[in-house]
Amino acid sequence: MQLHSFFNSSTSYRVRIALALKGLDYDYRAVNIRAGDHHATRYVEQVNPSAAVPALQDGDFTLGQSLAIIDYLDARYPEPRLIPAEPALRARVLELSSLIACDMHPLNNLRVLGYLQTVLMVSPEQKGAWYMHWVHEGMKGVERILERHGSGAWCFGDAPTLADCCLIPQMANAQRMGCDLAGYPRSVAVYEHALTHPAFEAAKPQKQPDFVAA
Amino acid sequence: MQLHSFFNSSTSYRVRIALALKGLDYDYRAVNIRAGDHHATRYVEQVNPSAAVPALQDGDFTLGQSLAIIDYLDARYPEPRLIPAEPALRARVLELSSLIACDMHPLNNLRVLGYLQTVLMVSPEQKGAWYMHWVHEGMKGVERILERHGSGAWCFGDAPTLADCCLIPQMANAQRMGCDLAGYPRSVAVYEHALTHPAFEAAKPQKQPDFVAA
Repeated sequence: MQLHSFFNSSTSYRVRIALALKGLDYDYRAVNIRAGDHHATRYVEQVNPSAAVPALQDGDFTLGQSLAIIDYLDARYPEPRLIPAEPALRARVLELSSLIACDMHPLNNLRVLGYLQTVLMVSPEQKGAWYMHWVHEGMKGVERILERHGSGAWCFGDAPTLADCCLIPQMANAQRMGCDLAGYPRSVAVYEHALTHPAFEAAKPQKQPDFVAA
Repeated sequence: MQLHSFFNSSTSYRVRIALALKGLDYDYRAVNIRAGDHHATRYVEQVNPSAAVPALQDGDFTLGQSLAIIDYLDARYPEPRLIPAEPALRARVLELSSLIACDMHPLNNLRVLGYLQTVLMVSPEQKGAWYMHWVHEGMKGVERILERHGSGAWCFGDAPTLADCCLIPQMANAQRMGCDLAGYPRSVAVYEHALTHPAFEAAKPQKQPDFVAA
C-alpha cells in the first residue's frame, strides 16, 4: 500500500491516523504541495485526478479524498472500525467529521490562503483574521455537538473514530496558527487525550519523512 | 419527518433529492439563511448546533450535515440505496461526493461570499472571479473522475447515488452564476439526464415553498 501525502496537509494527517490505528504498513510517497507537485501531469493522470493529497494506492486500486479513503479502509481492514455501524453513533461521527471536513478545513487550506494572498492581495492581518474567523465558526459547532453527544476521552463512544481522525489535525493546525482554543474545553480535552496515543503520535507532521521546520 | 431547508442552499438541495428518490414525505421547515435565521438561539439549541441548513428531524432524532443525513437515510430507509455497498463503486461515489462537498461547495456558499464582500470588501468582479476559479478547479477533477470511472447517464453504475445528489445542485449553481460548463461534457450529460427525473425535479429550488425569485 502507498500513501501519497504531504506532512503538513491535514487531510493526509487524517488518513495517516487511520492507517496507524489499524496498524497498516505503507510506503510514504511525499507530494510537495507547496512546490505544486500535485499538479504534475503524471500525478494527475496516474494517481489522483483531483490533483490533491492524500491518495491511497492499494494494489491496483487508487483512491483520493480522505473521507472516502477512510471509509474504504474500514471496509477492507475493519479492525478497529473507525466509522461505527450502530446508527445513532455513526450519524454523530459522520456529522462531526463533515462539519470539520466541509465547513472548516476547506476555507483555510494552502490553496485558499494562497489565492487570498496572491490574487486578492489581502494583508497578513486580513489573512490571519480570515483564518481565525473560520476556525472559530467551526469550533463553536464542534464544541456544541460534543457537549450534547460527546463521551469525554474520545469524541464519541469509548474508542477513536473518524471524528477524532478529523478533529485532531484541525486542532493541531489551529494551535500552530495561534488560535485561542480556551473556549472549547471538550474539544481540547479530546485533543490532549489523543496526543498521548501512539497512532496519533506516529501520524504527526513532525514524524513524517518529508517534514521540514517552518 | 421534518427537513429544515433553504430553497437556494445546495446542501439542502442534496437532501431533498435523496428524500425524493426514496419517496419519503416530510414537513418542509424553511430557514431563511439570508436573514440569518440559522443563527437564532432556538434553532441552534433545539435543532442544529452547527447553525446551518439542512437539518433532519426523524422522530426524536435530529441530525445536521447533508452527507451524514443521507448516510442516515440510507440505513433507515434503504430503498433505493444511494451509497452502494459494493466496495469499488462505493469508493468512487464517496470520492466524487467529497470532492464536491469539501473542495467546491464550501468556498462558494453564502457565508463565504458574504465575508469576501463585507469584510474583505472585494469588488463584484473579484467575487465573480473567485466563484469561477473554485468551480473550474473542482469541475476539472469531477470530469476526470467521470472520464475514468463514470457510467454515462448517472455518475456511477446504473442508478442515481449520493454522487448525483451532490453533482446536480453544484452544476445548477454554476449554471445560475453563468459559469461556462462546456469543457465538462460528461458532467453536463449527467446533469441534463438528472433534470428529466421526477425526484430531481421535485427537489429544485424553484419548487420549494420558500422560493423567491432573485
